[in-house]
Amino acid sequence: MSLEELERFIERLPFASIDHLRPATQGHQEVILCQGKTPEQVVGIAERLEGVSGSFLATRAEPAHGAALTARFPRAELNELGRTVYLPANPEPEPTGRGTILIVTAGTSDLPVAEEAAVTARALRNRVERLTDVGVAGIHRILTQTEVLRSAAVVVVVAGMEGALPSVVGGLVAVPVIAVPTSVGYGAAFGGIAALLGMLNSCASGVTVVNIDNGFGAAAAASRINHS
Amino acid sequence: MSLEELERFIERLPFASIDHLRPATQGHQEVILCQGKTPEQVVGIAERLEGVSGSFLATRAEPAHGAALTARFPRAELNELGRTVYLPANPEPEPTGRGTILIVTAGTSDLPVAEEAAVTARALRNRVERLTDVGVAGIHRILTQTEVLRSAAVVVVVAGMEGALPSVVGGLVAVPVIAVPTSVGYGAAFGGIAALLGMLNSCASGVTVVNIDNGFGAAAAASRINHS
Amino acid sequence: MSLEELERFIERLPFASIDHLRPATQGHQEVILCQGKTPEQVVGIAERLEGVSGSFLATRAEPAHGAALTARFPRAELNELGRTVYLPANPEPEPTGRGTILIVTAGTSDLPVAEEAAVTARALRNRVERLTDVGVAGIHRILTQTEVLRSAAVVVVVAGMEGALPSVVGGLVAVPVIAVPTSVGYGAAFGGIAALLGMLNSCASGVTVVNIDNGFGAAAAASRINHS
Amino acid sequence: MSLEELERFIERLPFASIDHLRPATQGHQEVILCQGKTPEQVVGIAERLEGVSGSFLATRAEPAHGAALTARFPRAELNELGRTVYLPANPEPEPTGRGTILIVTAGTSDLPVAEEAAVTARALRNRVERLTDVGVAGIHRILTQTEVLRSAAVVVVVAGMEGALPSVVGGLVAVPVIAVPTSVGYGAAFGGIAALLGMLNSCASGVTVVNIDNGFGAAAAASRINHS
Amino acid sequence: MSLEELERFIERLPFASIDHLRPATQGHQEVILCQGKTPEQVVGIAERLEGVSGSFLATRAEPAHGAALTARFPRAELNELGRTVYLPANPEPEPTGRGTILIVTAGTSDLPVAEEAAVTARALRNRVERLTDVGVAGIHRILTQTEVLRSAAVVVVVAGMEGALPSVVGGLVAVPVIAVPTSVGYGAAFGGIAALLGMLNSCASGVTVVNIDNGFGAAAAASRINHS
Amino acid sequence: MSLEELERFIERLPFASIDHLRPATQGHQEVILCQGKTPEQVVGIAERLEGVSGSFLATRAEPAHGAALTARFPRAELNELGRTVYLPANPEPEPTGRGTILIVTAGTSDLPVAEEAAVTARALRNRVERLTDVGVAGIHRILTQTEVLRSAAVVVVVAGMEGALPSVVGGLVAVPVIAVPTSVGYGAAFGGIAALLGMLNSCASGVTVVNIDNGFGAAAAASRINHS
Amino acid sequence: MSLEELERFIERLPFASIDHLRPATQGHQEVILCQGKTPEQVVGIAERLEGVSGSFLATRAEPAHGAALTARFPRAELNELGRTVYLPANPEPEPTGRGTILIVTAGTSDLPVAEEAAVTARALRNRVERLTDVGVAGIHRILTQTEVLRSAAVVVVVAGMEGALPSVVGGLVAVPVIAVPTSVGYGAAFGGIAALLGMLNSCASGVTVVNIDNGFGAAAAASRINHS
Amino acid sequence: MSLEELERFIERLPFASIDHLRPATQGHQEVILCQGKTPEQVVGIAERLEGVSGSFLATRAEPAHGAALTARFPRAELNELGRTVYLPANPEPEPTGRGTILIVTAGTSDLPVAEEAAVTARALRNRVERLTDVGVAGIHRILTQTEVLRSAAVVVVVAGMEGALPSVVGGLVAVPVIAVPTSVGYGAAFGGIAALLGMLNSCASGVTVVNIDNGFGAAAAASRINHS
Repeated sequence: MSLEELERFIERLPFASIDHLRPATQGHQEVILCQGKTPEQVVGIAERLEGVSGSFLATRAEPAHGAALTARFPRAELNELGRTVYLPANPEPEPTGRGTILIVTAGTSDLPVAEEAAVTARALRNRVERLTDVGVAGIHRILTQTEVLRSAAVVVVVAGMEGALPSVVGGLVAVPVIAVPTSVGYGAAFGGIAALLGMLNSCASGVTVVNIDNGFGAAAAASRINHS
Repeated sequence: MSLEELERFIERLPFASIDHLRPATQGHQEVILCQGKTPEQVVGIAERLEGVSGSFLATRAEPAHGAALTARFPRAELNELGRTVYLPANPEPEPTGRGTILIVTAGTSDLPVAEEAAVTARALRNRVERLTDVGVAGIHRILTQTEVLRSAAVVVVVAGMEGALPSVVGGLVAVPVIAVPTSVGYGAAFGGIAALLGMLNSCASGVTVVNIDNGFGAAAAASRINHS
Repeated sequence: MSLEELERFIERLPFASIDHLRPATQGHQEVILCQGKTPEQVVGIAERLEGVSGSFLATRAEPAHGAALTARFPRAELNELGRTVYLPANPEPEPTGRGTILIVTAGTSDLPVAEEAAVTARALRNRVERLTDVGVAGIHRILTQTEVLRSAAVVVVVAGMEGALPSVVGGLVAVPVIAVPTSVGYGAAFGGIAALLGMLNSCASGVTVVNIDNGFGAAAAASRINHS
Repeated sequence: MSLEELERFIERLPFASIDHLRPATQGHQEVILCQGKTPEQVVGIAERLEGVSGSFLATRAEPAHGAALTARFPRAELNELGRTVYLPANPEPEPTGRGTILIVTAGTSDLPVAEEAAVTARALRNRVERLTDVGVAGIHRILTQTEVLRSAAVVVVVAGMEGALPSVVGGLVAVPVIAVPTSVGYGAAFGGIAALLGMLNSCASGVTVVNIDNGFGAAAAASRINHS
Repeated sequence: MSLEELERFIERLPFASIDHLRPATQGHQEVILCQGKTPEQVVGIAERLEGVSGSFLATRAEPAHGAALTARFPRAELNELGRTVYLPANPEPEPTGRGTILIVTAGTSDLPVAEEAAVTARALRNRVERLTDVGVAGIHRILTQTEVLRSAAVVVVVAGMEGALPSVVGGLVAVPVIAVPTSVGYGAAFGGIAALLGMLNSCASGVTVVNIDNGFGAAAAASRINHS
Repeated sequence: MSLEELERFIERLPFASIDHLRPATQGHQEVILCQGKTPEQVVGIAERLEGVSGSFLATRAEPAHGAALTARFPRAELNELGRTVYLPANPEPEPTGRGTILIVTAGTSDLPVAEEAAVTARALRNRVERLTDVGVAGIHRILTQTEVLRSAAVVVVVAGMEGALPSVVGGLVAVPVIAVPTSVGYGAAFGGIAALLGMLNSCASGVTVVNIDNGFGAAAAASRINHS
Repeated sequence: MSLEELERFIERLPFASIDHLRPATQGHQEVILCQGKTPEQVVGIAERLEGVSGSFLATRAEPAHGAALTARFPRAELNELGRTVYLPANPEPEPTGRGTILIVTAGTSDLPVAEEAAVTARALRNRVERLTDVGVAGIHRILTQTEVLRSAAVVVVVAGMEGALPSVVGGLVAVPVIAVPTSVGYGAAFGGIAALLGMLNSCASGVTVVNIDNGFGAAAAASRINHS
Repeated sequence: MSLEELERFIERLPFASIDHLRPATQGHQEVILCQGKTPEQVVGIAERLEGVSGSFLATRAEPAHGAALTARFPRAELNELGRTVYLPANPEPEPTGRGTILIVTAGTSDLPVAEEAAVTARALRNRVERLTDVGVAGIHRILTQTEVLRSAAVVVVVAGMEGALPSVVGGLVAVPVIAVPTSVGYGAAFGGIAALLGMLNSCASGVTVVNIDNGFGAAAAASRINHS
């Protein structure tokens, strides 16, 4: 395409340049990161996306974002724990990925990040399952679930504190494992740095990592794999 | 045990997998870390634990956690300074450890962490004593207490700022010394990092360290020692 | 399996416990990380692996490791740039992955890490292609290769300095993208931290990251994906 | 000048030493950084500056600063997004710089910093243009604007997250490029450190950097260039 | 004791003040940290200690320290891997601790630190056993050894990389667990910081930590416990 | 003194051990750091100190501390900017130091720290003078005051941001210079780390440094010098 | 240009993709960063650049790089202090920039970085002058040179330790000032971090910063300004 | 003085600007920091200083610097441990300070830094005494020396590891205490950061700190105090 043709796919608002090429390049339209945007800006972007596709996903929605979006789009689903607002197309399309994305959490406190991942994975047209509170301090909690782990197409492991769970999971299965460090912990957890470093240095080979608390990114990566 | 047998010891709630093997493997049931959990989740876990043992301990309880737990379990004891809620079995069992856990603080501001340690040590069935505000800037405050230090089975030393007290205590006694850095201080104290590094680099041999503000962990370690 | 049966799959040497369950759990046998081991230890482990499978892969081989391994196994292939020693089975088996792993480097200095990734990917039975020195300062170097990028099953992007290339690649393609930060750079590159942080914070969704200079890990992850 | 003569250009208030030599040494009078000052102190300094020049610029104005300044100087312009209060001379003088300062943002969330830069550049007598939300994840959003970039006298690039945009812009143009990292992002963005490091390590040559969120500093530097 | 009496227990050399009260306060005489001392200084201190007790232990011995000590004390035992020089009393006294100190390593590369710990534990009169290369990536390697772990009086767990092994061990046993992070790893292992943080944030309760690579300190702490 | 005699100088409250030897060892009684203490604890300590000496100084007083202290001691002086509460003896004793302590600030925002230093210096019986807002960006603001600087017994330099002022002052005078970094600044100022590092690395010889925002400590050090 | 046309400007070697569009986009051809490249690779790239333009510049040349380049190009000029190899076109073209780039150093130890900047500025066709060892500890060393500073088109200030000199220079002149932190210093200089932070937080407005020891980048930025 | 007069006191060599005003402003001439300078540059500067005063002091002298200086100035005294070269005037002048500077070390490994301090203090005309290896792990080693500490005019405390000694010394004496962190230690000592943070956060009031390993700076500060 020439630059002129490319420019036609970009919708330039005063506060945003919406990229309507994303479905072609990425397999899905833009997702709205609410953080740092005003509710008005978020609604403005959502309107453009909904106008094109009948759908949008917004993440990191503060209560004001959530209120503005659900007021404007009554059909939109607010997930308070995961801080997402999702407007599925009507009817919601079937999952297209090859298999299931399994989202595993080390502890109860990791659930908000897991929810962000779960909603994102669904919006990107994947089947999702969950396995909750199976951290390594009671190692049998995960060992008894080895078959569940192995049956997934991709495993997303969400853990805070020392972030050890992905190493154990990575050693139990051969499928792709994506580790999400969370800011759960205190003191020398340093807002998730300990978990992040633990995961980057995993002694299990082939575990990859996303940013701290980045459930969205983990699901996006899992969806790339599940659709490849 | 087979995996099937192990699985029977795990109670899988929607938001938690409670590990009923802990008394066998750890010598005590799970302790509830309230941080990052909703009051409903905390009460839900406490109910299961109380149902099995007639007792539970919850740490890092925010006021909402404390209110929910004491409303549901009127006999539970709320320690505001230490942010713990403890429901002892009825009657409360006798201490089983070999000796006394002595909890020493460098300054008045370290008391909340010391309280968390003291309640935990009691819940894990240890005798507890305290020695308060004996930091190194007035070195005679600790020197005059050397006999008290030596009579303990384990000494837990809680200190912020430069975290020097465990080095002095470690040099005065031969018993096990566990150092707890606190986030007390300002500026280059960096929320407890200075104290943590000071303790990790202690010139006294055989001092071990737990996470910043981790009174719970220090008491759990002291209890392991006191019961070994 | 019972614990007794499991123990039979573990070969306990004085300095290592070789895990012969890896082919079953991970899809491939253990890979030898030479760093921190003596040449004698490395050869000892290689002999056990070769004895079972006729093959081994050793990474982070210092010259002494390389010399010891090639002396003992004359058929082993030493890759000096990538610091690997690979003994393929005889005959070398065909690739089994679904597609091709494309290894992209931002600059010439990133080649050693790319080589480690390439040898690992081959040893794990994947087809490998390369695209070299296409960093973002001359953005057309990568733009003209968009079709090559899109035809891969997985793209591994190796970059130092600011680590921006995975963000651009992630925006151009829908296939899985694994980012490898390298320690290339100076000053505030901090041995790869700048690139690592850049990649973790990528504005392209669904990029995952491995440890600094971890070409091995990136290839292992890519192979998990390529075999899923 | 002798020390006595120099002292006459310094107005010593109880809480500030106002430097009336700045127009001679810097080309413009002092700009008021509101952060850390009381509204009374800010108004006090503004009164002296207005008395000399009929104008002032205040940055990092909290609501209380803004209210105090606009109450005292009704003609002053409050920019809420950019947190600036600007009282132009009456009439506002024409721009004196050689060309245009182009302010480019990677995302919508970077707009507050861009606004601070834009107001500052105007106050320092420069023409200003904007290009918004053209981050590298959709690389064609900036590629189609190459001519706009090249026509500027100076380009200020404002970006958070991985801070990759200045590297791409620096490679597209030969004019001076000033990079402003923002604290936009989460987790391992570390309040702008990731973007700062990305920019300092830019693989594009000749990109310079200012402090995190320092739109003021970027505009001041751009103005130095535009007036040189 | 009066200050005059105390001073009689201190032997003041030009370069060291030897503390002959240590056997009374700590249960054992001073151990020589060779690092930062000249071989002559190390030999000088060793001579004083040997003169009093017929024994000494020196740690972090560079080859020059080792050569000087073994030349002067032919009966001294040099441990090259652990970098220790130990002169046992003649005859070597029996162990006095209550039970066995078990030293567990995650990988082969952690052996030097484990050796320093083992020699120190022996010199402090403890029985020592070892369990080697049982890291969490192949979790069954440690699971099959649970009975061995539970039979120890104290478990010292030595691990680099993500430092996850102490969390798993801490969950399997009720005895005291001391975690030693090692500088094994690369990239974001940051010379042992990742392992240190992992251990400080262990989700297993009651794990305590010593400095990076501090096998000596772990053994000293284990000996305090084993003798309490 | 014997340990029994020493113990008589320590007043052991449930939450504090007050050290009545301080006037003998330090030249002044304890100063109360309010941070981390309850208002009741602060008043309790103040009562003991006032009972002995008729005076006390409390620093880092939050409004609740200030209110409690001034309610209990109506004669006490609250300094809101410096967050101190000072009860001078009645009558207030004359300064005893050799000369004047000059407190210099780089900017208006550094005044709170300077006030803490000024009140402390007065309470420790020193003459105090001030020089305000003379940062290096307008270098003549400090150059014209060289004689004032040279006439002080000690110069305390309070600066945030890059913390360059102590280097310039240290080069202008031969008297002792104490540098106080402040948390003034934003972005890469990192809460005073930039200023702290700048001061520790001062190219002027003989500048010493205290903790970030530690006006109290700087004054205490200056008073030691002024009384030596 | 179409992608096919763009591809024709890229010369793809096995180890590098040389970008022959740089003269058009950047105003000068690629500069060779030797670090991380083999001497053979460096010579290979130099040959292509020399073939097109009769000139090249290589930076961060280790002795082996320097030897290989001067052997292959006897006319090339090796600057040992600055670690550059420069082959000027024959005859060397006249400077084209508007004015002079003045390179100021705080201390003698900063000279290597200043030399890298000077050679780069010359190669990019600028006039260069130097002012050496004028750090702020003896402030008159720079004050007496104010006129020299003001007569430059751009001032590059190279400083290690606390990096305070750019703040003073920035306050003395209105022309663009580029600060280069150097790794000169020890201890808490942290390899240039202290100077870098000092410069990023400069209280002088409009100072921009490049990476630690990045004399090349400072000169490239200065040349952009001098040619704008 | 006018700028012209000031310029006459600056001797501008090609690589250094020697400041002959230092004796007037600082009380002593410049001290040569050898680090980062060539031996030729060091000798060149030493010749100018010796020519004016018959004396010089050089610090951080590598063997090549030491050899060059002692070859050129046979009377110069090389201190290998402290890495200083000192040429006293002939005859060496009497000390002029008010009292004695006492240099205290925590351990034998801190001696090199203490030696740098001792030579510097002597060169700046102070009486010097030493107290060696009195770290806090054997607290009676320092307690028995309280009278020695109190009789000094200034105490310089040199300590690595956790850097706790200055806190204890600061609590024992009322005289000025300067703390010097050293890079002695390993692991989480982080090259002196642990000691530096410990000292900055000292719970003893009025302790000031210099850079890591900066024996020179501590002595310069002590000399300022001793001469004030």
